[in-house]
Amino acid sequence: MTVSHLIASLQQGDRKSLARAITIVENDLDGAQEILLSLQLDKAAPVIGVTGPPGAGKSTLISALISNYSKAGLKTAVIAVDPTSPFTSGSLLGDRLRMTDHFTDPNVFIRSLATRGSLGGLSATAIEITDVIRASGFDRVIVETVGVGQSEVEIAGLADVTVLVLVPEGGDDIQALKSGIMEIADVYVINKADRPGADLFAKNIQHLVHGTTENEIRPMIKTVASTGQGIDELIAAIDSKSGAPASAKRKSFLFTEKAWRLISQKRMKDVSKADLAGKIESAVEKGNFQLYQFCQQF
Amino acid sequence: MTVSHLIASLQQGDRKSLARAITIVENDLDGAQEILLSLQLDKAAPVIGVTGPPGAGKSTLISALISNYSKAGLKTAVIAVDPTSPFTSGSLLGDRLRMTDHFTDPNVFIRSLATRGSLGGLSATAIEITDVIRASGFDRVIVETVGVGQSEVEIAGLADVTVLVLVPEGGDDIQALKSGIMEIADVYVINKADRPGADLFAKNIQHLVHGTTENEIRPMIKTVASTGQGIDELIAAIDSKSGAPASAKRKSFLFTEKAWRLISQKRMKDVSKADLAGKIESAVEKGNFQLYQFCQQF
Repeated sequence: MTVSHLIASLQQGDRKSLARAITIVENDLDGAQEILLSLQLDKAAPVIGVTGPPGAGKSTLISALISNYSKAGLKTAVIAVDPTSPFTSGSLLGDRLRMTDHFTDPNVFIRSLATRGSLGGLSATAIEITDVIRASGFDRVIVETVGVGQSEVEIAGLADVTVLVLVPEGGDDIQALKSGIMEIADVYVINKADRPGADLFAKNIQHLVHGTTENEIRPMIKTVASTGQGIDELIAAIDSKSGAPASAKRKSFLFTEKAWRLISQKRMKDVSKADLAGKIESAVEKGNFQLYQFCQQF
Repeated sequence: MTVSHLIASLQQGDRKSLARAITIVENDLDGAQEILLSLQLDKAAPVIGVTGPPGAGKSTLISALISNYSKAGLKTAVIAVDPTSPFTSGSLLGDRLRMTDHFTDPNVFIRSLATRGSLGGLSATAIEITDVIRASGFDRVIVETVGVGQSEVEIAGLADVTVLVLVPEGGDDIQALKSGIMEIADVYVINKADRPGADLFAKNIQHLVHGTTENEIRPMIKTVASTGQGIDELIAAIDSKSGAPASAKRKSFLFTEKAWRLISQKRMKDVSKADLAGKIESAVEKGNFQLYQFCQQF
């Protein structure tokens, strides 16, 4: 199949072509640039970022979202950038079994993205791969990130709507969340809301959120993802937020961050990390490695 | 003062020269490269990374370390890369007052580093600034990082010894820590060890740590930083770890990461983010911005 054929069948939602296009873009093979330039992103699917601390139940929540979307006939893609997510290969068996239904559902496409380090920073081609998936005939794209090891720009930059999932026990996390991640969320979810302390916790969050919003309503939804409680409400909240087009200012900001990353990737293309490592190793062994001198040659 | 004069007085531990050298390197002014090439890093002070979740008491612990070092006549530099640290300007008044002693102690140099985003990623010149400080006549350099929004490489890459500070209440954090940060720590601290559950928590951590060490002893110290309990023991543990030279393999790995960052910074020097933002903004307003087309010109 030529690249132009691939692009055509990609736009028609062909899964095999999508898998192939992702491989090409991820490994920067011949045709990668052609594919990226062809993406029709204007009417692409809204990207729903789901983030929050480990153990908050993000995957169970996403699982409930997928089920609802699928029943409504909507095609959903899930991109897992969380190394501990059951959607990725490093998953727990129990969780995986629960996910099996989705893996065989023709309305659902699941893809996990390699992370930069074990703390979960986005990999180099995360932006491009997400864009390829967005432009491939889906109605919704969900990106799961762990919210640790990722800057708010990385998370928000990928998503049109960011859902922050918290749990009532997360009282201690509030301090951490205050320092950035709270502000990027468009929708707050208190999951496992049947646990003691949920109401007090929700009140505290509302108090914090109140201070950061600018005359803008950010919904807070209480859910019990494992039973499906609150999911319809969450879907409505997401739809209302993704329907509203982002301001030109916010769009420009996110595009600038993306452009910066894409340009620096391009400029480092001829530098191989393995190559660097080899040269550095032998110099370190000889005991005469000088970092700043070494970097001058590049 | 010429750059060569500056370099000479830098090596003699002159504080004004240090502040000036940092400004030059941070803003890439004339002489920055000359300064970096002149740094004598072979016998530079060991860098002690102190990381852990917000609220674990990192700053109080560092404050106790500084006091002990200063009493012993040792010169200490503190680099705060944590936006919520009282060592940085965004500090709480109460904490700041407690820190006042250190700000006037001639044996202590405190510098906070701007972070990349509000979640605390390292700023572009963090590596260079840390190296300038390391080579400026200190006996110990302490780097405080929040351990959120930073990859393990970023944290470990700056430090010769990494101290991970946890608190007994942090049970829920263990899952998060498992996914990366646990492995980079050389010394574990259970701070606020007078709180209930400290012994059980320590046992759990020891269990986790046991699985990751390779015949290597990683000390776990219980402290109550606010009263000074356990600090002598912690200092001994840090000294024993920083005395042992890192393996050539680890050194090479960290140098490779540093070199990669330095090279990509250099190659992006002619690209201004403000410039990008301006061009992108006007295209977005006109409604005809195409990310991948735009990036082709660079």
